[in-house]
Order: sequence, then structure tokens, then C-alpha cells
Amino acid sequence: MQMLQEAICEKGTVLPNGVLKVNSFLNHQIDTGLMIEIGKEFASRFSEYKIDKVITIESSGIAPSFFAAHSLDVPLVFARKKKSLTLKDNVYTSEVFSFTKQESSEITVAKEFIKENERVLIIDDFLANGQAAQGLINVVKQAGAIVAGIGIVIEKSFQPGRKLLEDKGYHVESLARIDSLSDGKITFLQEDAGITI
Amino acid sequence: MQMLQEAICEKGTVLPNGVLKVNSFLNHQIDTGLMIEIGKEFASRFSEYKIDKVITIESSGIAPSFFAAHSLDVPLVFARKKKSLTLKDNVYTSEVFSFTKQESSEITVAKEFIKENERVLIIDDFLANGQAAQGLINVVKQAGAIVAGIGIVIEKSFQPGRKLLEDKGYHVESLARIDSLSDGKITFLQEDAGITI
Repeated sequence: MQMLQEAICEKGTVLPNGVLKVNSFLNHQIDTGLMIEIGKEFASRFSEYKIDKVITIESSGIAPSFFAAHSLDVPLVFARKKKSLTLKDNVYTSEVFSFTKQESSEITVAKEFIKENERVLIIDDFLANGQAAQGLINVVKQAGAIVAGIGIVIEKSFQPGRKLLEDKGYHVESLARIDSLSDGKITFLQEDAGITI
Repeated sequence: MQMLQEAICEKGTVLPNGVLKVNSFLNHQIDTGLMIEIGKEFASRFSEYKIDKVITIESSGIAPSFFAAHSLDVPLVFARKKKSLTLKDNVYTSEVFSFTKQESSEITVAKEFIKENERVLIIDDFLANGQAAQGLINVVKQAGAIVAGIGIVIEKSFQPGRKLLEDKGYHVESLARIDSLSDGKITFLQEDAGITI
């Protein structure tokens, strides 16, 4: 997705530890216009998948999935990373390890918000090792619902997440696929028009 | 706001501890159509306030503030509740105590995303004791920016938050004002058309 790649090139920064920081439009400050286009793009790519619900993880997943759910005319559910007092029982949970934060957290979705046989589109901001997506898949499967597809804003294609998910039979659509962040340089996979900065 | 009051009446539940649960359209599952109308309503109420930026708190503040920022054509920034590895230095922080969760958390905004003299609209999902709004005010003031107004989705008017903020001179706009949750019954303030269920 051209508009997203341009935002990554212009506003993203690569930290010494290989983390791609996109705080200025996705993870902390939000460019709502770009998020709306991202949402429409997800909706377009999954328009034939008979989606009943979009599920993401708080907090960074909410903005890019908001308009996807709206365009597909289905509810959006965000998994919580920690149990709250108003969400004690009747929840599906799964453990997720974050390599960025170097910690495990438990994600939680209230049972009432995923129904058996619902076709669920999972959306997340990043795909690297696939831990967050796998956590959401676990939650969807516990409910007896179906993972109809996985939409990712930024895929680190040099990490194993996509292969892990595809090997399990899931259909993954990533709006930007990054081939390398070596030496602080962002290189996209050739299929994505091959912008290099 | 009629559409919001109807959603609260139809889908909200009052827990025995006086917590109003609106998980089915605001805090966990998101009704994106309603959130868009809420965002437009905030934008309309603050259209003359020369807003430069909207600031909210993850996660439940993101959906209702998304379209407010979009309609006002300004960036949205969400304060994080916990420091992340990619947000270590150069941040403004403030302590926030949550009565619902009975715990303190530190909210964090990167300095680069609030500029001196910017006119900031603070938006949050609930106003009860005013702790979250006060935390955001602290952060805005640390940056030398101006709190141009405070937009609240659901105000518990029987709790001291609004008075606390107004006594300090802030302009507060709440889209639904709840007069009482006694006996599990939701009663709105008379000025809001006085729907009672």
C-alpha cells in the first residue's frame, strides 16, 4: 500500500535494536486519515471473506482496524492485555510474549463477544514473530469461531511470523512488507513496489 | 446526545458496585458507527475552539476520539498507561488513580507530540472522579500547551469530577450525563432529554 509505505519511509525511524518506530502516525500519535485508508484497504482485501467480526489487540490495533470493521459493517472487538475488574469471568484468555517489551501478557476477550462459527478477521499493527496473532487465533478457536483471515499493517518479512501463520493454513494480508531494517535502512519486499530509502 | 443515551439504555448494564458496563459498544466491543457520530459531535461542540490536537488515554479513549480528531483535521495522540521500551526518555508523565481498577498507573506522552502553546482538546470515555482528565491536564501543562476543552463520552454527574474540572476553569462537554445509577437504574440529567429506564 503506497500511502503506508510513504508514511513509513518519511516518518518511521529504525532504532539500534532493530525496532521500527512508527509512533508519529500509528502507535502513539495517530494519523486518522491514513488509518481510514488502511481500514478501507483491509475491508477491500477481505470483502469476499464473509467477515462477521473484526478482532484486534489494544491499543495500537484499534485505530487501523476501526475503519476496516466500519467498512465491512461488522463490530470491532479489541482483546484486552490485562484483566479488569469489570471483566472477571466468562473470558477467553491466551498468553502472548512480546519481543519488543520482553514480557508476557495475557490477552482476554469476553465470551459474549465471540460466537461459535462466526467468521473473524484478525487485525494487528505489526507481524514479526507472530505471537500476538497466535494469541488472537487461540482465543477465536476457544470460542469455536473461524479465523477467516489475518490483516497486518506492517509485516517484518525477515522474521518468522508470516511463515508460521501460513504453514498453519491462515490467509495473511500485510499492507507493508519490510524485507530488511539492516543498518537503519528500511527496505520493502519487491512485490510492494520496492521503495528503498 | 440522543443516540448515545439510547445505546446506554439498551446495552449498558449497572454492576452491583455501581460500575456502568458499556462493554458491548465502547470499552471492549466497539460500535464504530456510534463512535463516528460521537466523534462528529465532539468536533461540532469544539469547532470554535481552534483545536490543534486531540489527546486521549489508551485504550477506551481511542475509538470515541478518532473521528473527533479526523473531523477537526488534527492529529490524535493517545497517552500510554505504561512505559514501553520504545518510549523511554523524553516523555511527560503523570500519575492516575483508577477507582474502577483500584490501582495507580502512570500515563506517558512523548514530548515530541505536544508542543508549547498548542491548543489541546482532551477526550476520555468516562468522567467520574476526574483523575484521568487531571492526569492528561498535567501532561498538557508540562508541555506548556493549553487545555482548550475537555470532551467526555459518559459523565457520572453524581461524582465530583465535573465540578473539580469546572472549578479549575476548564470547559467540559459531556455527551451523556448520568444523574444516578441507584438500584441498577440509569437516570440521565434532565437537560439531556431526561430518558429514564
